[in-house]
Amino acid sequence: MNYRLVLRLIGNILKIEAMLMAFPLAVSLLYKNSYRTIAAFAAPMLILLAAGFALGSAKPKSMQFRARDAFAAASLAWMAMSFFGALPFYFSGGFASFIDCIFESVSGFTSTGISILVYTENLPESILFWRSFAHWTGGIGVLVFMLAATPEANASGVNLLKAESTGLSPDKIVPKVRQSAKILCLIYLSMSAALFVMLIASGMPLFDCIINTASVAATGGLSNKDIGIGAYGNAAAEMVIALFMFLFGVNFTIYYYIVNKKIKQALADEELRVYVAIVIVSIAVIAIDISSIYGSVPSGLRYAIFQVTSMVSSTGMVTADFESWPALSRALLFIFMFTGACAGSTSGGAKMVRFIVLYKAAKAELRKIIHPGSEQPIALNGRKVSSDIISKASLFLFCYFFLFIVSVLLVSIEGADILTSSSAVIASLSNSGPGLNAVGAYKNYSKLSALSKSVLSFCMIAGRLEIIPVLILFKPSIWKRGGMD
Amino acid sequence: MNYRLVLRLIGNILKIEAMLMAFPLAVSLLYKNSYRTIAAFAAPMLILLAAGFALGSAKPKSMQFRARDAFAAASLAWMAMSFFGALPFYFSGGFASFIDCIFESVSGFTSTGISILVYTENLPESILFWRSFAHWTGGIGVLVFMLAATPEANASGVNLLKAESTGLSPDKIVPKVRQSAKILCLIYLSMSAALFVMLIASGMPLFDCIINTASVAATGGLSNKDIGIGAYGNAAAEMVIALFMFLFGVNFTIYYYIVNKKIKQALADEELRVYVAIVIVSIAVIAIDISSIYGSVPSGLRYAIFQVTSMVSSTGMVTADFESWPALSRALLFIFMFTGACAGSTSGGAKMVRFIVLYKAAKAELRKIIHPGSEQPIALNGRKVSSDIISKASLFLFCYFFLFIVSVLLVSIEGADILTSSSAVIASLSNSGPGLNAVGAYKNYSKLSALSKSVLSFCMIAGRLEIIPVLILFKPSIWKRGGMD
Repeated sequence: MNYRLVLRLIGNILKIEAMLMAFPLAVSLLYKNSYRTIAAFAAPMLILLAAGFALGSAKPKSMQFRARDAFAAASLAWMAMSFFGALPFYFSGGFASFIDCIFESVSGFTSTGISILVYTENLPESILFWRSFAHWTGGIGVLVFMLAATPEANASGVNLLKAESTGLSPDKIVPKVRQSAKILCLIYLSMSAALFVMLIASGMPLFDCIINTASVAATGGLSNKDIGIGAYGNAAAEMVIALFMFLFGVNFTIYYYIVNKKIKQALADEELRVYVAIVIVSIAVIAIDISSIYGSVPSGLRYAIFQVTSMVSSTGMVTADFESWPALSRALLFIFMFTGACAGSTSGGAKMVRFIVLYKAAKAELRKIIHPGSEQPIALNGRKVSSDIISKASLFLFCYFFLFIVSVLLVSIEGADILTSSSAVIASLSNSGPGLNAVGAYKNYSKLSALSKSVLSFCMIAGRLEIIPVLILFKPSIWKRGGMD
Repeated sequence: MNYRLVLRLIGNILKIEAMLMAFPLAVSLLYKNSYRTIAAFAAPMLILLAAGFALGSAKPKSMQFRARDAFAAASLAWMAMSFFGALPFYFSGGFASFIDCIFESVSGFTSTGISILVYTENLPESILFWRSFAHWTGGIGVLVFMLAATPEANASGVNLLKAESTGLSPDKIVPKVRQSAKILCLIYLSMSAALFVMLIASGMPLFDCIINTASVAATGGLSNKDIGIGAYGNAAAEMVIALFMFLFGVNFTIYYYIVNKKIKQALADEELRVYVAIVIVSIAVIAIDISSIYGSVPSGLRYAIFQVTSMVSSTGMVTADFESWPALSRALLFIFMFTGACAGSTSGGAKMVRFIVLYKAAKAELRKIIHPGSEQPIALNGRKVSSDIISKASLFLFCYFFLFIVSVLLVSIEGADILTSSSAVIASLSNSGPGLNAVGAYKNYSKLSALSKSVLSFCMIAGRLEIIPVLILFKPSIWKRGGMD
């Protein structure tokens, strides 16, 4: 890979992170946090600036990001960002160990939203803010921010966009990379602003509105309340959050269509239709299934709407202990942990479009057996899907499965039962949130071993970048020098 | 499809089944079972003969089995066989309901080895024999028997062989179909005979040797003892069975190579190497992991060897309650439920060769990102693997996953917890045996609802035929008449 180019990019990301840290620093001053807390942000800012300028000064011979450079740079940048993002937690003194800080930071940036904290409410506001702010920057992707902000971004920046955005063949919305990144950021900002205003209107306290806006927009899920959103007992806020968890699970390109009055094209999107259908059917099924617990179908509806949108969007917020729900409801929610919502959204998981395409490919395979002559191409939204894209989708599933097996075995070493280990790994790989059993809805990840926390941290980053960019680091040939070959 | 051809084939299978039923009938006479038990075999034999001759008299215009006819015929023949095979259980009166009889029959023929019986030891010998004999005929595949026995088998019979045998691109061992089927049967018979002799030598009672030979050869797992092989307290018998569970997990083509002195070719087989390596490493890891329970590594070894070979070959026999083992050991055994052993063996699961090929395809994909120019073909055992085979392997995984999700949701309706439902579905789809939790090692499937038992029965047949032949029945166009189009 082109080392200088990659290091330079990491340097730029660290500089951006230094600027981002100015926000929690401001919060710590505003809320008059202890000097130690203030220093916990000030010191990492200086470290980030120093590291950022040192690395950022690298002078690459070529400024072109080939796919391998972009993938390696994205993976390494995310790892570096998470590492430095853990420093405020560590310096603040409120965390048990450094691996806990790393875990919390990774969970933040990857918008997974799992936590090793048992009690959050006695933490300084700035620390709580930083966790959710990490969600928010990671949700859309820090490289997208950078591409939108940097005038030097060239056409090869599309490979960076690809490394960080999600789906089958993630591509720019408009031909120009920087313009695409700007549009994505604008949609993200506008929707976040709308969410914030509606949360304020619901009567939620200001600080909590900020925290929850950041967590929901990123479909992250970290909260400043120990028991999460249920703590407010605010049905209006719950419905607002449910609505936006659903909306942030939609491909952002759809919103671009809508803004540009291409309503027909937006509504015809096959993934959107499947997503909407699955959400509606699941809410109905679960509302009926849990009606015996909550007295009636309408009262079950409130919890069903919240929990379905929360799990399908991989936010992972909880307003009810769904582990005590009937088996069918639990099974549905568990499956959502893996599927995720739409490609090109802030949601995690494998993304529905992959299953749609593979479902079509399987049907085509059966058709070929029945009618050996006929060759009907597979189409999505009226456009032919190349066999390359289908094989990439299935290889993604295979890599996901492979990483799942290896990670479950590693997490099992400490003695976690199969339900705990496998749900923890799925929750991490899918950036969704709570698992089952020992890492269930109202529990947390603090009791896991350092090895398990490291494995899950790796899984979170791998899941956020959709695995391939991270796996590439394991190919020895990527580490060979070379800018032009 | 060519209805007459398909019906004729089903008729022939039913005639074969009638002949097979002569064996348990003989057992019932030999052991002086009650008249009701004797009639429970005699009556179905007559029904099978009548149905067999009625269907077998169909006169197809074409005797060519195209892929669709072969796949549909194989699926329907397996369903018919399981249905009629349930009649002796039903007529004998020892079963709670007809769906229980179907479940037990399907579990027998598909060599899954899960049971709804709580107490087996007070059942008539002929009924116990029929369960295990069903394993044995289903293990190699009843179509293979038929192809070996029928002189009229033409070249299109290869499609029948493909429908029933397992792996990436199941194919005949030698150019002639009938000859291939004969070789498979001969290997199967010889190995079964060897196993039988060694079990006798180990000191196991004669009747139990017959039962266990049939169960182990098919990697089925049903036993005539309530607590299975552990009941004998016979370490020699356990080691013999472990050895043969391992051997029946090997691709039968390897034995053909060995008999033909192509030892080098046999030992170079990549799937065999991976299989052997995984078995050895897993035994070592588990023996160490469970040494604290059994006092020392050597005493752990006895249980590790048995349980690893049993789970990886999808036999599912137990000599220890592995659910009380440490998490790592349990996780490993659980993963084996899904992987299975080698293609072209009597084992179930997805087969290791699929994972090997997909692993190579994933590596090739990463290589393409790093070196966009290079195009290195994927090879297995020195031969190029076509992209068609790779996409078939990944579509198999997708269909497996799809069927898994749907089945888990259906089994969840009765309220089974996620560990019970998902392990029951995996055990059925992989034809492996016990699941976890409520369907764990020393428990059984009797308490499940009729819906769950039907779903699992379907999964067992789908798993045995590696899904595609069964899924094809869901395409409406397969049901159109036509022999030539």
